[in-house]
Amino acid sequence: MNFQARQQKLAVRLREARVEALWITHLPNVYYLCGFSGTAGALLFLAGEKKPNLFFYSDGRYAQQAAEQVKGAKVIIRNKPAMPDACERIKKAGLETLGFESDHLSHSSYAQLRKSAPRGTRLKAVSGTVEELRAIKDAEEIEQIRAAALVAGSIFQTALTAIRPGRTENQVAGELELAARRAGAEKMSFDTIVAAGARSALPHGRASVQAIPAAGFIILDYGVILAGYCSDMTRTVHVGRVSQAHRQMYEAVREAQQASIEAVRPGAQAGEVDKAGRSLLKKRGYGEYFSHSTGHGVGIEVHEAPRLAKGQTRSLVPGMVVTIEPGIYIPEEGGVRIEDMVLVTESGCEVLTPTTKDLIEL
Amino acid sequence: MNFQARQQKLAVRLREARVEALWITHLPNVYYLCGFSGTAGALLFLAGEKKPNLFFYSDGRYAQQAAEQVKGAKVIIRNKPAMPDACERIKKAGLETLGFESDHLSHSSYAQLRKSAPRGTRLKAVSGTVEELRAIKDAEEIEQIRAAALVAGSIFQTALTAIRPGRTENQVAGELELAARRAGAEKMSFDTIVAAGARSALPHGRASVQAIPAAGFIILDYGVILAGYCSDMTRTVHVGRVSQAHRQMYEAVREAQQASIEAVRPGAQAGEVDKAGRSLLKKRGYGEYFSHSTGHGVGIEVHEAPRLAKGQTRSLVPGMVVTIEPGIYIPEEGGVRIEDMVLVTESGCEVLTPTTKDLIEL
Repeated sequence: MNFQARQQKLAVRLREARVEALWITHLPNVYYLCGFSGTAGALLFLAGEKKPNLFFYSDGRYAQQAAEQVKGAKVIIRNKPAMPDACERIKKAGLETLGFESDHLSHSSYAQLRKSAPRGTRLKAVSGTVEELRAIKDAEEIEQIRAAALVAGSIFQTALTAIRPGRTENQVAGELELAARRAGAEKMSFDTIVAAGARSALPHGRASVQAIPAAGFIILDYGVILAGYCSDMTRTVHVGRVSQAHRQMYEAVREAQQASIEAVRPGAQAGEVDKAGRSLLKKRGYGEYFSHSTGHGVGIEVHEAPRLAKGQTRSLVPGMVVTIEPGIYIPEEGGVRIEDMVLVTESGCEVLTPTTKDLIEL
Repeated sequence: MNFQARQQKLAVRLREARVEALWITHLPNVYYLCGFSGTAGALLFLAGEKKPNLFFYSDGRYAQQAAEQVKGAKVIIRNKPAMPDACERIKKAGLETLGFESDHLSHSSYAQLRKSAPRGTRLKAVSGTVEELRAIKDAEEIEQIRAAALVAGSIFQTALTAIRPGRTENQVAGELELAARRAGAEKMSFDTIVAAGARSALPHGRASVQAIPAAGFIILDYGVILAGYCSDMTRTVHVGRVSQAHRQMYEAVREAQQASIEAVRPGAQAGEVDKAGRSLLKKRGYGEYFSHSTGHGVGIEVHEAPRLAKGQTRSLVPGMVVTIEPGIYIPEEGGVRIEDMVLVTESGCEVLTPTTKDLIEL
């Protein structure tokens, strides 16, 4: 990955915002900027006048891993809090402004930062700056995400084979996750959702010990992580014969999803993409049953910028990777969701998820 | 679970601290107090004069789940931020002090809270209050944790069977996780660690695509979640014939772990438990290779209070469940860690992890 280019881009942004240094505590941002994938670390980012200067902090547990992974930053291993050392560097450099990640620093850590910061250094709340860079993927990132989507698609058949009335949702999830590991995934990108029968009406129905009933929808929503990049997809299949009502539900979601996909192109507003599918569901009488937003960016995090929701005016840009995932959830009855990952291209979009969307009856 | 008793206990603590209401944003604390296990929700806790009064907030995705799970709190579903509504209630109740979870509220959310809070209501940073209650488990929690530890123990043999030179660490993890699902686990309590050969020198060596070498240590560190409660255990086994040096390493860790376990009893300070094992490793010449603390509490979170580390003066109390997990990590060479879960009892402690600690050669 081209960490240097990313570091340069951030430095430019910070200089523009007159932030001389940024204290980076959000781990996906740390990973993006220097490649560290562990679960404890922080980055002091000095924008510099011409060239940025980075200091990566972690503790003894991560000494070896940091030495192997961190690029373009000096590694500092301490079994004490990192903040005082970072503030000492700020002081030595005589900086006037230290930014911090306002969405990713707790109130109590902020209080500590205020205590440690040198007199004369102004603290500045920074929100979404690294996330904005991350929203637009570079070529290497797109290849990783594409590969992750393909691995997820390649194991879908395993999930279908595992579905059998009487088996628990958990078992299906377990088979799917083992197949993901075998296919080279590092881990799943979130808790696998296997929601069968009435539980399919739960938009976030994490696999449970409930047995799969003899008839009804099953929502499978899962993703894998490959080299730090996530995939995310949902398919809904049906156990037993599909009733007319269920087929109508399914087709409505499928058409709504297609309508939203067709709205994805450079310059389109996020809210328009949401509206395209949502108004179709409303027209079919399912409006009240689509209780969430249409999609989100995917990359190092499974949920990241941009958000595709009602009223969002943000414009799409080539290189963004987003999900399109409308759904209908009827309490007691069941639910349907179909989700693809979509890359915004120069001319429109490309669907990255290869799996069929025809309604499968098992 | 006896949510009412927990709510009463918290109300007493808050009244003592003169905090009339607490805005609870840490999800494990929300789960502890009202049973909601989803990933988006917050709790407004009014301590009351005699009886607490709770309001649980979430969005449309969790309407059905909240209706099923939440106990002892009024459920409020909104597809808008919860904070303004919560602040309106504070205003109506005419409260003077609103606490917030300082360790679990971002700087930016705190800024919003300050904006929404009624004039005349003082905000008060609260740290660890619910966590302190959670550190001492009640009988039902202990049973859940015990059950989770037994499930984890019951699948250890599956992991051993899966280990074979040339297979990836990932595959071993996948087999273990499928076995966990089959045994009824909701999910793993953290990313499964399978660290083979030189990678065993990484204290947090999450399973990777690396193949298992023909000889050397393999660290298996994993846990399952059962009904919301975590287990956590580590065993280190050896592929191929064990050298004298490796056997010495292993025995040192085993003895250090035993020494720390024997130090666990009501009234013992957390730092003493750490010291018991640490000084043994130092005596054997491995002091510099034990780069982390000895253990941590386990419950709804896999890492929670208390912390068993150097210098911690906190006293252990019956009902605490902690891990004891010393290790030796020699870069390039390999590592050993042995971890049990231990319940502090009236008279000493009880090891909850049933798996043998004899060195297994595969």
